[in-house]
Amino acid sequence: MTISSSERIDVGILGATGTVGQQFIRLLDRHPWFRPAWLAASERSEGRAYLEAAAWRLPSSIPAGIADQRVEACVPGRGPKLVFSGLDAGAAQDIEPAFAAAGHVVVSNARSFRMEARVPLVIPEVNADHLTLIAHQRRERGWTGALVTNPNCSTVVLSIVLAALRPFGLSRVMVTTLQAVSGAGYPGVPSLDILGNVVPFIAGEEEKIESETRKILGAIQDDAVVPHPMAVSAQTTRVPVIDGHTETVAVAFERAPSIADARAALAQFRGRPQELELPTAPAAPIVYLDAPDRPQPRLDADRGCGMSVTVGRLRTCAVLDLKLVALGHNTVRGAAGAAILNAELMKVDGWL
Amino acid sequence: MTISSSERIDVGILGATGTVGQQFIRLLDRHPWFRPAWLAASERSEGRAYLEAAAWRLPSSIPAGIADQRVEACVPGRGPKLVFSGLDAGAAQDIEPAFAAAGHVVVSNARSFRMEARVPLVIPEVNADHLTLIAHQRRERGWTGALVTNPNCSTVVLSIVLAALRPFGLSRVMVTTLQAVSGAGYPGVPSLDILGNVVPFIAGEEEKIESETRKILGAIQDDAVVPHPMAVSAQTTRVPVIDGHTETVAVAFERAPSIADARAALAQFRGRPQELELPTAPAAPIVYLDAPDRPQPRLDADRGCGMSVTVGRLRTCAVLDLKLVALGHNTVRGAAGAAILNAELMKVDGWL
Amino acid sequence: MTISSSERIDVGILGATGTVGQQFIRLLDRHPWFRPAWLAASERSEGRAYLEAAAWRLPSSIPAGIADQRVEACVPGRGPKLVFSGLDAGAAQDIEPAFAAAGHVVVSNARSFRMEARVPLVIPEVNADHLTLIAHQRRERGWTGALVTNPNCSTVVLSIVLAALRPFGLSRVMVTTLQAVSGAGYPGVPSLDILGNVVPFIAGEEEKIESETRKILGAIQDDAVVPHPMAVSAQTTRVPVIDGHTETVAVAFERAPSIADARAALAQFRGRPQELELPTAPAAPIVYLDAPDRPQPRLDADRGCGMSVTVGRLRTCAVLDLKLVALGHNTVRGAAGAAILNAELMKVDGWL
Amino acid sequence: MTISSSERIDVGILGATGTVGQQFIRLLDRHPWFRPAWLAASERSEGRAYLEAAAWRLPSSIPAGIADQRVEACVPGRGPKLVFSGLDAGAAQDIEPAFAAAGHVVVSNARSFRMEARVPLVIPEVNADHLTLIAHQRRERGWTGALVTNPNCSTVVLSIVLAALRPFGLSRVMVTTLQAVSGAGYPGVPSLDILGNVVPFIAGEEEKIESETRKILGAIQDDAVVPHPMAVSAQTTRVPVIDGHTETVAVAFERAPSIADARAALAQFRGRPQELELPTAPAAPIVYLDAPDRPQPRLDADRGCGMSVTVGRLRTCAVLDLKLVALGHNTVRGAAGAAILNAELMKVDGWL
Repeated sequence: MTISSSERIDVGILGATGTVGQQFIRLLDRHPWFRPAWLAASERSEGRAYLEAAAWRLPSSIPAGIADQRVEACVPGRGPKLVFSGLDAGAAQDIEPAFAAAGHVVVSNARSFRMEARVPLVIPEVNADHLTLIAHQRRERGWTGALVTNPNCSTVVLSIVLAALRPFGLSRVMVTTLQAVSGAGYPGVPSLDILGNVVPFIAGEEEKIESETRKILGAIQDDAVVPHPMAVSAQTTRVPVIDGHTETVAVAFERAPSIADARAALAQFRGRPQELELPTAPAAPIVYLDAPDRPQPRLDADRGCGMSVTVGRLRTCAVLDLKLVALGHNTVRGAAGAAILNAELMKVDGWL
Repeated sequence: MTISSSERIDVGILGATGTVGQQFIRLLDRHPWFRPAWLAASERSEGRAYLEAAAWRLPSSIPAGIADQRVEACVPGRGPKLVFSGLDAGAAQDIEPAFAAAGHVVVSNARSFRMEARVPLVIPEVNADHLTLIAHQRRERGWTGALVTNPNCSTVVLSIVLAALRPFGLSRVMVTTLQAVSGAGYPGVPSLDILGNVVPFIAGEEEKIESETRKILGAIQDDAVVPHPMAVSAQTTRVPVIDGHTETVAVAFERAPSIADARAALAQFRGRPQELELPTAPAAPIVYLDAPDRPQPRLDADRGCGMSVTVGRLRTCAVLDLKLVALGHNTVRGAAGAAILNAELMKVDGWL
Repeated sequence: MTISSSERIDVGILGATGTVGQQFIRLLDRHPWFRPAWLAASERSEGRAYLEAAAWRLPSSIPAGIADQRVEACVPGRGPKLVFSGLDAGAAQDIEPAFAAAGHVVVSNARSFRMEARVPLVIPEVNADHLTLIAHQRRERGWTGALVTNPNCSTVVLSIVLAALRPFGLSRVMVTTLQAVSGAGYPGVPSLDILGNVVPFIAGEEEKIESETRKILGAIQDDAVVPHPMAVSAQTTRVPVIDGHTETVAVAFERAPSIADARAALAQFRGRPQELELPTAPAAPIVYLDAPDRPQPRLDADRGCGMSVTVGRLRTCAVLDLKLVALGHNTVRGAAGAAILNAELMKVDGWL
Repeated sequence: MTISSSERIDVGILGATGTVGQQFIRLLDRHPWFRPAWLAASERSEGRAYLEAAAWRLPSSIPAGIADQRVEACVPGRGPKLVFSGLDAGAAQDIEPAFAAAGHVVVSNARSFRMEARVPLVIPEVNADHLTLIAHQRRERGWTGALVTNPNCSTVVLSIVLAALRPFGLSRVMVTTLQAVSGAGYPGVPSLDILGNVVPFIAGEEEKIESETRKILGAIQDDAVVPHPMAVSAQTTRVPVIDGHTETVAVAFERAPSIADARAALAQFRGRPQELELPTAPAAPIVYLDAPDRPQPRLDADRGCGMSVTVGRLRTCAVLDLKLVALGHNTVRGAAGAAILNAELMKVDGWL
């Protein structure tokens, strides 16, 4: 699946100066299909060069050609048809529907509409078929564009693991997260709170994991998603790590697999992005490591260019059936990379 | 319960130069009942002044009177009747029984004998009655001394929480730990492994939590402990924190309490150390914090001079009944302080 | 020098809810002379209980009796005669002179007036005689109160070291600081900036060190301070440490001492707080450690209850004469503790 | 300068399983000229597959083709002509000369022979002409091979900066380093020593910086290096950073340049590796950043694939003439990458 570079599609980025916006720009640099041609942010940034408007916090440099682009206001109707949204939830609430109404296809990382009935909440390897909600969305809202979302950064990691284990009948799931500070944006977590410390609370995070996971793994019936009936219980903590959310997971099944079968299901799991060889798709959505002390965020978060979830320590659980440790890159697979993969799938499936 | 300072009992410390040994010395400085009079360590240290033999790593200074003491070899029969053991498991295997056989009362933090049938594994607030195993131990082994142990540092935190909730019938327990590096001793965890990282594995730790907790909460029947029948499943991780193990805990009960009743049971929990006003006993074994983001190791590990477990975030669980976050100081309540409290109880109960 | 507890003087705290304000409250709890009786902060906090108005970030609990006090507005004329100021520089600019004009003795940690000609910038061990500027201040400004300041947190550490070496004739001084995040207040330094990182810039800090140090070590001539003629050059960095500023220092002298003489001068240095046995004075302003790898913030910042500067690694320098490493607790000796020691000296010297 | 891949030269690695050895393997993967064909380590590893013998600690995976290679013993005469040495100093002392005597060209990162009169201590951008010492080395020792070294990781950063400023006449240099933990190897620095802490001491490091820098910037006269006459004074500290040594530097010159001239000299500095376009040479040896708070290790250590030194904050100094902050990647430019660049230069200059 290749598109010649001369055919790159112009895309816009809402919230281009923020943390997620910066990741969009980094990941779209040299993207074979999409070209970041329109950068929009709040009025404060309007008219300024991107270099000045954004406090660039990534180790890599601002891509050539971006630094001097003027940042524009988030005005619906302006900019390309496809826009990625890295807006925060407050801004997304009004801006995203206005763009969808004006004919834009909004591929959003914001949490605002994830749980709306007609808004697909998609991980391409897990529930690519949920994109069919777009037809119902357009009819119900009268939109010519569309609004599609990706899950919360912790939810992605858990959902991909659960999707691989879905054949055994998911029944009950417990997860404790150890989340990196980059998930909180910038300035985000004060250093006095997290240096040498653990904060066992992230506002709204446990609720998001519990509800989003059941929607993602749910089934389309007519014009809506019926959430998966499994019980999900999450405890979330913040730890002094820059990138990479670690999750201890325990699962009870309807038909509990052996360790060997569960390991094979995890390691061999593939989805439509791998079939279609989408540009941002990792070769394997899940990398299983047999070393006893992995995955670790510093060593494993970047696997598959940040798009693979790494799993290890699969073993039996005295309370549920199996337990394991999973890890994913929260600002790549858990944010901007997730949205880009969604857009790639939408392009191939004819939604753009 | 006071004993005048002139009556302080001489005590010995096995493994006095190590990490736990240093904590014994720190905590026994100005102890009203016990006076560290005999410091023993491996042959490498024998004959040297404590100051030179120990690489003191604690923020406080070596107590006056200790720095110049000669370190002796761990020879049974020498030293006071009461000896605390901060030996590592390998050394403890042979040395501790030899001391007990020679008439010493060994109050040990080592893991070697915790799960032995005739060895009490004691948290004074939880299972003070297990000390009666000493009589069976003496008869079976022919010892004139005794060997008593305290649990692993993560187990203490969990067991105190569970003891407070025991009236509701403990059925199933899941715990994920986020453990501090001081639990691994010195040099312990390499900085390259843990700076900005999480290591989701601590050798043997999950097994210890699962087995020790059930023994501690078990019942004495005749001359042995019948482990508590509850199922316990643990996942353990190491995080970049100096002191204080954080644990996310979920519990299913036979008679699930309301949040209010569980909160009251936690906050009002008291044990024999509080009744007896033992010198090292905290006013409350559990401090319950209502702030939404507590407990945190940097802010809460030192509560009750490191002897209180702090609990917060009590809420319902979609999989089990209740979930909460608990925290304890791993080198105080989880190691040297635990052993000292055991010895205090043993003194009052006439075992010394 | 003791004053019976019944005679404790009521004191006020301006900026009581902030980071420095919290340290004032912590350090004044059980102070033998001063009782925090009046807590003032911005209008946002006015009328609220201290517990609610302040986001208490210290490991110790809010002292009893403080939690329920009402926070008042910073209105000159209200509150006790002696007020400590933990205001930030912007607020201090207007509020502190207004209080001094209204008859209050303002003992301030803010940077706003430190370099004013008639404002004493005092470290009691170093330049107690600079308090005589108060007389000129009152005459010039027509104040019935007074305004006295303590230096910036990095400056205190350096100045105390230099004061001890002053007998050898200070000529040129170079310092690089490695500063803790607590020096930046709360929320202060974002964790994304400092976790596993160094930020080699702190706005205005180098200038403060260079100018304040020369004023503190300067001589009173008539009604002003003539700055010390030595050259001072500072480089400042932020490191991932909670409390404790480390400084590498090199000094050229007019009469370069031997290592032994310099070491003796440092270890034996005493000032008026030690003579007077002021309540907050450490036994020794400087603790010299001979271990090759000290001082270290985690192990040494709390020496002398945070009021001692720790020095080590004294050795010859190939460019200047001597070099050494110094360390001080930035929120105690470098902020609230510095102001309290100033107030204690002022009380004894009859300025209150 | 290209060599077709089919012509890649086989190279050996002494100490292949250690921290520096792992970096050699990572950096030589896909190297256009050199192919790691022979892996040697201590007897403990002999005969084992590399995967098993090395505790691989790098985020990237072991390159294909390396994992299964057998590790051999360090026996002179075996293995390719060109061998890189990542041996520690103790092992290097005997092994490296034996290899050079047996006809190998040893390009070493070990400190053992850096200061030997006939051993070139080379940074290709700074003193490429020092390679001519090899002729004298061969004559004096009777070697058919050779031994060439690169400097200590902190010295490289400083020396490159000083080389750029050399035209202004270097007179006196002061440097304080804030060094990453990866410089100490594995297990290296215990986490208890460095989490939230600074250790102001690294054994032997200050002496190395002071002596190596003067040799590198010295001039070849006949068959030896006359050290540069400038005075160099170093203070070294360890900070909780994974990769990247930060250095605060101050310099006095014979002909002090303006800030603008110094900035230009830094930014425009180039050396023979850039002229020759050596494969591992960065486009610019020094990247100058104008942002007020740079360089920072987390954001800048990887510039030029870890081979560029980043400099910022150039400003006047009240004691010497100019001061600045410099940063380099300690395990790339400061270790394995330095040796590889040396070997590339030696190949082009005909020394292999």
